[in-house]
Amino acid sequence: MHDIVLPKLRFAKNRLSGESIDRLERRIGDLDDIFSDRAAYAALPADRLVYEVESSFPVPDGTEGGLFLGITYIHPGKVGQEYFMTKGHYHKIRNRAEIYICMEGEGMLILMNEEGTHTWAEKMEPGSIHYINGHTAHRTANTGNRILSFGAFWPSDAGHDYETISQHGFSKILVDQGGIPTLVNKPRL
Amino acid sequence: MHDIVLPKLRFAKNRLSGESIDRLERRIGDLDDIFSDRAAYAALPADRLVYEVESSFPVPDGTEGGLFLGITYIHPGKVGQEYFMTKGHYHKIRNRAEIYICMEGEGMLILMNEEGTHTWAEKMEPGSIHYINGHTAHRTANTGNRILSFGAFWPSDAGHDYETISQHGFSKILVDQGGIPTLVNKPRL
Repeated sequence: MHDIVLPKLRFAKNRLSGESIDRLERRIGDLDDIFSDRAAYAALPADRLVYEVESSFPVPDGTEGGLFLGITYIHPGKVGQEYFMTKGHYHKIRNRAEIYICMEGEGMLILMNEEGTHTWAEKMEPGSIHYINGHTAHRTANTGNRILSFGAFWPSDAGHDYETISQHGFSKILVDQGGIPTLVNKPRL
Repeated sequence: MHDIVLPKLRFAKNRLSGESIDRLERRIGDLDDIFSDRAAYAALPADRLVYEVESSFPVPDGTEGGLFLGITYIHPGKVGQEYFMTKGHYHKIRNRAEIYICMEGEGMLILMNEEGTHTWAEKMEPGSIHYINGHTAHRTANTGNRILSFGAFWPSDAGHDYETISQHGFSKILVDQGGIPTLVNKPRL
């Protein structure tokens, strides 16, 4: 009788394991378009690890009604005064939401409205749960001294629009001001 | 500056807290249609707690692209040899998937195909992650001696079809056979 089977995926010690885990790394050299302080960016080694993502895609990308899940690990660090952070994206299908659950570390979920005019942030700490509404750009920054990790759940047909953020950024950036994570207007280039 | 806000939801000590948590209890008296051993069922007090669900519905039920999340706590117990379990359901929109993550205890995720002809189960234990494909009926049973709890994530337009299960049940039931959780054909009434 093979009608009782073992789970195909496991979460243990803050890592994902099991069948077909997708692993992604983003290093300084991959993040040319997101940090504001160009001189500080250029001074960092291109191979310095900024964040990693472990994901499970149980159905093909684009499947209506399916779900994807992933864990993101952002290393501590700064580019100038700006905290290490993810690229950030809108969903290609704009109304698709996402849920984050913070597991370890401290950080900020940075959000921006669809028009790109308003940026705000939610504090992330172990156990915090974050609902990211559709039509809302999102990125995360590590504001602490150790790894920030969080789980994410999103619809398998959401898709990622990284291009809009690559071109326009968020309307504010999150910087260290005397030890306090603070959202400030982007410096004019 | 109110552009940095605290998280609205938290997960701590295996409970959900924060804004607008929906709490649901199912007692023996609410579960008239799911257990096979009618005499054993009738012998249990109607107010005995079988399971609780804490949920967050950040958008209206039926919203396309949104997500819901919940934590289910199934108490240990049996009705005859059948383990305490949830009602079980298909999603109203049949292709909607769901993800479970087991937090504590031990149990089984019982699954059935859309035609109602094939029932199987996945073992649940702390850290196990379960992808429930669309078109698949699902219920969970506590096979241990303490609470089984798990987090769930599902699309906000999935809906619940409890009626099909209420009328036809699953094609197999999960019973204790000498201490081993075992799927067996339903007894003929």
